[in-house]
Amino acid sequence: MALSFQHLTSTKQLTREDMDAILKVSLEMEKVRDSGSSELLKGKVLASLFYEPSTRTRMSFEAAMHRLGGSVITAEGIQFSSMYKGETIEDTIQMASQYVDIIVMRHPEQGSADKAAQVSGVPFINAGDGPGQHPTQGILDMVTISKERGTLDGISITMVGDLLYGRTVHSLSFLLGLYKDVTFTFVAPDALQMPEKVTSYLDEKGMKYSVTQELEDGLNSDVLYMTRIQKERFADSSQYEKLKDSYILEAAHVKDRDITVMHPLPRVNEISTDVDALPNAAYFRQANNGVIARMALLAMLLGEA
Amino acid sequence: MALSFQHLTSTKQLTREDMDAILKVSLEMEKVRDSGSSELLKGKVLASLFYEPSTRTRMSFEAAMHRLGGSVITAEGIQFSSMYKGETIEDTIQMASQYVDIIVMRHPEQGSADKAAQVSGVPFINAGDGPGQHPTQGILDMVTISKERGTLDGISITMVGDLLYGRTVHSLSFLLGLYKDVTFTFVAPDALQMPEKVTSYLDEKGMKYSVTQELEDGLNSDVLYMTRIQKERFADSSQYEKLKDSYILEAAHVKDRDITVMHPLPRVNEISTDVDALPNAAYFRQANNGVIARMALLAMLLGEA
Amino acid sequence: MALSFQHLTSTKQLTREDMDAILKVSLEMEKVRDSGSSELLKGKVLASLFYEPSTRTRMSFEAAMHRLGGSVITAEGIQFSSMYKGETIEDTIQMASQYVDIIVMRHPEQGSADKAAQVSGVPFINAGDGPGQHPTQGILDMVTISKERGTLDGISITMVGDLLYGRTVHSLSFLLGLYKDVTFTFVAPDALQMPEKVTSYLDEKGMKYSVTQELEDGLNSDVLYMTRIQKERFADSSQYEKLKDSYILEAAHVKDRDITVMHPLPRVNEISTDVDALPNAAYFRQANNGVIARMALLAMLLGEA
Repeated sequence: MALSFQHLTSTKQLTREDMDAILKVSLEMEKVRDSGSSELLKGKVLASLFYEPSTRTRMSFEAAMHRLGGSVITAEGIQFSSMYKGETIEDTIQMASQYVDIIVMRHPEQGSADKAAQVSGVPFINAGDGPGQHPTQGILDMVTISKERGTLDGISITMVGDLLYGRTVHSLSFLLGLYKDVTFTFVAPDALQMPEKVTSYLDEKGMKYSVTQELEDGLNSDVLYMTRIQKERFADSSQYEKLKDSYILEAAHVKDRDITVMHPLPRVNEISTDVDALPNAAYFRQANNGVIARMALLAMLLGEA
Repeated sequence: MALSFQHLTSTKQLTREDMDAILKVSLEMEKVRDSGSSELLKGKVLASLFYEPSTRTRMSFEAAMHRLGGSVITAEGIQFSSMYKGETIEDTIQMASQYVDIIVMRHPEQGSADKAAQVSGVPFINAGDGPGQHPTQGILDMVTISKERGTLDGISITMVGDLLYGRTVHSLSFLLGLYKDVTFTFVAPDALQMPEKVTSYLDEKGMKYSVTQELEDGLNSDVLYMTRIQKERFADSSQYEKLKDSYILEAAHVKDRDITVMHPLPRVNEISTDVDALPNAAYFRQANNGVIARMALLAMLLGEA
Repeated sequence: MALSFQHLTSTKQLTREDMDAILKVSLEMEKVRDSGSSELLKGKVLASLFYEPSTRTRMSFEAAMHRLGGSVITAEGIQFSSMYKGETIEDTIQMASQYVDIIVMRHPEQGSADKAAQVSGVPFINAGDGPGQHPTQGILDMVTISKERGTLDGISITMVGDLLYGRTVHSLSFLLGLYKDVTFTFVAPDALQMPEKVTSYLDEKGMKYSVTQELEDGLNSDVLYMTRIQKERFADSSQYEKLKDSYILEAAHVKDRDITVMHPLPRVNEISTDVDALPNAAYFRQANNGVIARMALLAMLLGEA
């Protein structure tokens, strides 16, 4: 299926039609993967360029490429020798475009993905540009909600933790805004609540949301999206001490409820391991959906699905 | 062939039947490799997770996977970004289980392999957990002895160097203990002799062994297994000075003898390079056997051999 | 086609027949790559050993291997754990020869490539040994000139920048010396002019060359080969200040001329980005030629082309 873009740098590029198509192809890709080996991207080469290490995201993209029969060349972290010789991102990407068929890049600087996409001679995917965008995380979260709940229209979701700085909850809110009648509950300390740029977008879309400091207020949703809350975000450490345990999810919170627990991972202690064995716990399945969603994106951007 | 285990974390899991099966399949794998390309593991993906770098072991596993037509995703050393965000081994392995079909892990902490195997959703192989186990090294040593000497029952082996701390000689002794009438000669300074945990095991198995400080006492065996002896192991440096040259093997020691020289590599100077050209020198063939033994293990644990 | 060598460590090994054969096979490889997937090197494994990081060169070789259906195992930079345990290059290469079918190595020490080639049991390619050789860069430059200009005999080339220390311009001069009636213009500050070892070689071959400090003197050639000039090479910084802007190429210099602009990359500022859009700008196509030239070398050394 065709997407409305050639390079993926931001969730803001996606229309509902794009998101629906990615969902559909992701489910097909799940079957492809489970049926054994595929040759859909045989002969295609992916450059996996991680200026900043992100083992999880990198491995997910590389597994996706291999699952479709493609090949991968990788550069990560301090291995970027040319960067240290003063080369611009634009030159690196123009060079890599000569080597491969598709490029995935993570870079610590916001805006670097747009610079790269502007000159790339092959499809380009942003795998995170610092505090900027990380669109495939939002997309895999959408695939997860859709698979776990059977729909996206009409669902209710609670987002917990650091909603001010959390890139993943912003992206996910944006993508859910493409659907109908989604209800949001934002659970966070006042100092870390959802920023105006997100709430004004939801207002514009006519979405309902409520704001609270109490985790308990959010346990009646279809989805509970946990994120990590970091001590260093608090100016007043006594506020941190007061709140920190409020946002640690335990089995008792969810075991008798029809609520799907998600987390972008890695977790530290914000979800107790006693939740892992519950059917509610979707965070490892979420990692699994990352692979099929990336298979879908790689194949679609290469014109092979 | 079936193995008695799903995850390989320790040589202590192996029965004689397991070891015999691995030997048999390793020889088949040698033919597979020499005949060109194989598609036995086509479509399968290996995660090669080296929290601690070990270029040799990593490349051997990855070559084995490629030789069978499979794919590899790699993370090594400081690339483990999620580790630095406080993620547990258990979470990393549960995540990786969503991405791949089989996992190989090296980790600096003893016991980490058992933790990983406990939660892994796919077959798991320990590639060394600190001072703990490194079972595939022992297995490839067994394959080497079997290929070089035509048998394992009844062979005589001399082990030289740091027998107290040497993980490889302990594993190999254990595996040889599964066979019949193996005779051991342990050549080491008193302070670095084979520990009681190994000798008591051999006693239990009814194996004969002798203990000496002189390399010359061990040159009548079928196999001479050299290891490095490290200066820092000696409390008394004068004892080191006295002994260090005793354990440097030279061509003159073995050139007219029917003795197979092995070494786990890397060597520093404990085997003179003039030994390399002798037919006795099996240590580079040993590296070769590492690939076929790992091909066998990957294929068997994936149910494809 | 057969080459006159089994291991490639220096441009000095190449005869004109070798170079012609590589050119011919490179053009075939371009077609192979553009036609989609190839299985020419299916089942073959490359060890890509970069003791010193060089992302560009490494990715180019790895892309070349994947384009031919082969597999790659990689070690780069600090990942070389065995090096730190005191292993010699010779032992590492003998070990790697047991794992793979062909080896590419970059190493910071001059002479390391010769040491490696001497013991390698499989074809070996030097990807740069410190201030020593980097033969595949020279070869891809030759492929580029041949493709851009339609011939190598009779061409005129201007080389600009640090000609004293520049490894690439030395290799390229040597290879051009295998052809007929090549004319050279060397543009550099006196302190960084082409060394006698190159000019005496050209004298021997009966090649014409002229020496100048002015970029403008070199704009009538078929090829303009730019390199970076480094401040730290100048004893007298006032000379650097005087010259530095003389060697920054801008669109105005070349836009109305039939001159091909090359650069080994990465560039810093010695070619203005306004040159990039001109048809003269061949430096990204040069990167592309690096892949097809390396495909040719891998296939030829493995006896498959």
